[in-house]
Amino acid sequence: MKIYRYPTKDTWKNLVKRPVLEQKEISGLITEIFAEVEKKGDSALIEFNKKFDKAETQSIKVSEAEILEAEKQINKELKQAIQQAKENISKFHASQIQEIQKIETTKGVVCWRENRAVESVGIYIPGGTAPLFSTVLMLAVPANLAGCKETVLCTPPDKNGNVNPAILYAAKLCGVSEIFKTGGAQAVAAMTFGTECIPAVNKIFGPGNQFVVAAKEYAQRYGVAIDMPAGPSEVLVIADEQAVPEFCAADLLSQAEHGSDSQVVFITTDLKVFDKTIESVEQQIKELPRNEFAGQALKNSSFILINTLKEALEFSNLYAPEHLILAISNFEKYIPEVQNAGSVFLGNYSCESAGDYASGTNHTLPTNAYAKNYSGVSLDSFVKKITFQQLSKEGLQNLGKTIELMAEAEGLFAHKNAVSIRLK
Amino acid sequence: MKIYRYPTKDTWKNLVKRPVLEQKEISGLITEIFAEVEKKGDSALIEFNKKFDKAETQSIKVSEAEILEAEKQINKELKQAIQQAKENISKFHASQIQEIQKIETTKGVVCWRENRAVESVGIYIPGGTAPLFSTVLMLAVPANLAGCKETVLCTPPDKNGNVNPAILYAAKLCGVSEIFKTGGAQAVAAMTFGTECIPAVNKIFGPGNQFVVAAKEYAQRYGVAIDMPAGPSEVLVIADEQAVPEFCAADLLSQAEHGSDSQVVFITTDLKVFDKTIESVEQQIKELPRNEFAGQALKNSSFILINTLKEALEFSNLYAPEHLILAISNFEKYIPEVQNAGSVFLGNYSCESAGDYASGTNHTLPTNAYAKNYSGVSLDSFVKKITFQQLSKEGLQNLGKTIELMAEAEGLFAHKNAVSIRLK
Repeated sequence: MKIYRYPTKDTWKNLVKRPVLEQKEISGLITEIFAEVEKKGDSALIEFNKKFDKAETQSIKVSEAEILEAEKQINKELKQAIQQAKENISKFHASQIQEIQKIETTKGVVCWRENRAVESVGIYIPGGTAPLFSTVLMLAVPANLAGCKETVLCTPPDKNGNVNPAILYAAKLCGVSEIFKTGGAQAVAAMTFGTECIPAVNKIFGPGNQFVVAAKEYAQRYGVAIDMPAGPSEVLVIADEQAVPEFCAADLLSQAEHGSDSQVVFITTDLKVFDKTIESVEQQIKELPRNEFAGQALKNSSFILINTLKEALEFSNLYAPEHLILAISNFEKYIPEVQNAGSVFLGNYSCESAGDYASGTNHTLPTNAYAKNYSGVSLDSFVKKITFQQLSKEGLQNLGKTIELMAEAEGLFAHKNAVSIRLK
Repeated sequence: MKIYRYPTKDTWKNLVKRPVLEQKEISGLITEIFAEVEKKGDSALIEFNKKFDKAETQSIKVSEAEILEAEKQINKELKQAIQQAKENISKFHASQIQEIQKIETTKGVVCWRENRAVESVGIYIPGGTAPLFSTVLMLAVPANLAGCKETVLCTPPDKNGNVNPAILYAAKLCGVSEIFKTGGAQAVAAMTFGTECIPAVNKIFGPGNQFVVAAKEYAQRYGVAIDMPAGPSEVLVIADEQAVPEFCAADLLSQAEHGSDSQVVFITTDLKVFDKTIESVEQQIKELPRNEFAGQALKNSSFILINTLKEALEFSNLYAPEHLILAISNFEKYIPEVQNAGSVFLGNYSCESAGDYASGTNHTLPTNAYAKNYSGVSLDSFVKKITFQQLSKEGLQNLGKTIELMAEAEGLFAHKNAVSIRLK
């Protein structure tokens, strides 16, 4: 833990810095994997499963039988939990659907926007240490609501060539069209180029390790869009004297357990809360199964004592955290001060894990200070907003002179002529 | 012109291809320019003005006196035109401001989104053959409406070290904070790193030549966001028997005059309209001052005769044009068929130049088939949508079990504990 008591503002710039991740070495490997998948398709993926995931997979595509079998393996309680989460995520994302609103900007000139779904989307779900079926919900539910025609899911197989049943169950429940056993950069390459069995998609979503992140970056040069640039997960907790140290410690640890590179920042105006939260973190961590990750992440974490909540918010805006918890009594007052954050959790009972799983908000959020210029995933991420305009003859008469003058001043006479010829 | 009569569907995939632009050679130059600007700041920009724009500039920043002087140089008529355009663009983009909508997903669990402006944005306006002051309106108006604290504009100086007065006038009118005389990749680098006089920004907008496009791409590795990937401008016109060939020809040419790499596609179901439009293009082009560009662009243009409007729309969706003109009588019927397009112009009086300048819609649109996965610039481009959630104790009681079950199934016990500790 790094402890800072009343750091002066000139030091903040250093305190908000994220560790720089070295990525140079892997770019050659990404290029190779993409070339291999483009050339050999499915057989390359089967090879990579053997090489990287130590898995024998005759077929890349998950069969209906496997999905049915997975459904049997999930107990009723977990199914109900997943269904409640799905319902809340659906409700919140459905509320983001916008009505068409026609605006007459000049008499006879009517403009509006209409949403159209991105036709084909790909969802990447990592394997590794935690089977993130919650991410399936977060991406497949809005894809479905948006009306994407095709929602493809790729995830690496385990050593026996299987996919975690909860991932399959969630995918089926949320209307994923097809599921494929392939992970890492090769999965991203497959969704970029398409293979015999995996369709090429228009946009790729989902978290992953540094190979997946680099592959998504790389995929963009082939015209594919991605959800957003990625970095390690983060939480920043702001607490006042009414915060509960045990709750704060639990929230900090739930971020820290994600991985050894997780970013954890705690800021409080209260000395007692400061000391007790640190104490509670040290106590709670002992009981965690993933305390190795959490311990590693905590080494890089910052615990900051600060003078005022106003300053705490100022620091937070400079840091631009993925998750911001305002464990303060009068949070309403400070909401307008929140400038840069992915998702904000208000008060003592809004723990981050509520948003991670089931409250309804999306958990795919901007990290690494990208909250300064990116939004988290929402229904918007799965649609294009197309503008339409309809000018009547009268409309063009009302606006024509303006267009002609501007086109002429820009030296674009064909633009001008498109109006003049109609008004003749 | 490339003429296709009733091309079979298996040939479409080739017909929708854009020419591939070679960019490899310039990446080294971009890296050098960025390094130079990062190291030397303003003095590098002054040097680059000399080198690339043949301009002597003692100061990079446009002075108040220069802006006042520019205002005098614009005649009253053009000022009024710019003001009408600004008013329409403001009206349409203001209609995109969303009210906060709080959703109770589970009793005691309230979620919503709030917009926050991207704090600092940069607008790039090319110099070159046409002074695109209309683009100033298209980017500065929504930036201003969104509440961006800082809107910086960079544009290359002419040989006398000046900026086109219409650009200065539009910038001032639309609330641009500061204007700088610097162009090309060096301008993008300056907005990425900041210099003595130019502030670093969070997001860079605006069109440009291949150096600017490559520089925007490159800037992203430093955490800056950009409006969208770019390519040459495009129009696809679909016409039926009621279309007016002269109007169609004028629209095609207004696209073609943008540059020799502009993409122009004409599709009709009517043989007479087909022949007459080609004839009219050949006639009208003779009178254009920029007919050299237009002629070059037309060489790559496609004129396609097709059987049905349904097929025409199908082709258009595969092409995913930046601008789509539906010069057909019953366009209402075909609006739902439009899947992939940047902006759509309906009927015989909605010429593309209306949207380019003054109807109110934004003219910064996805090209190069990016209309499949990107929207054009809108108010959304200048804000982040931050999610908020507030759980009461009761809310967490209602949702807690679900969160605990899911966290446990993902093996994330600290996530579970953040709930359990609160419900104890």
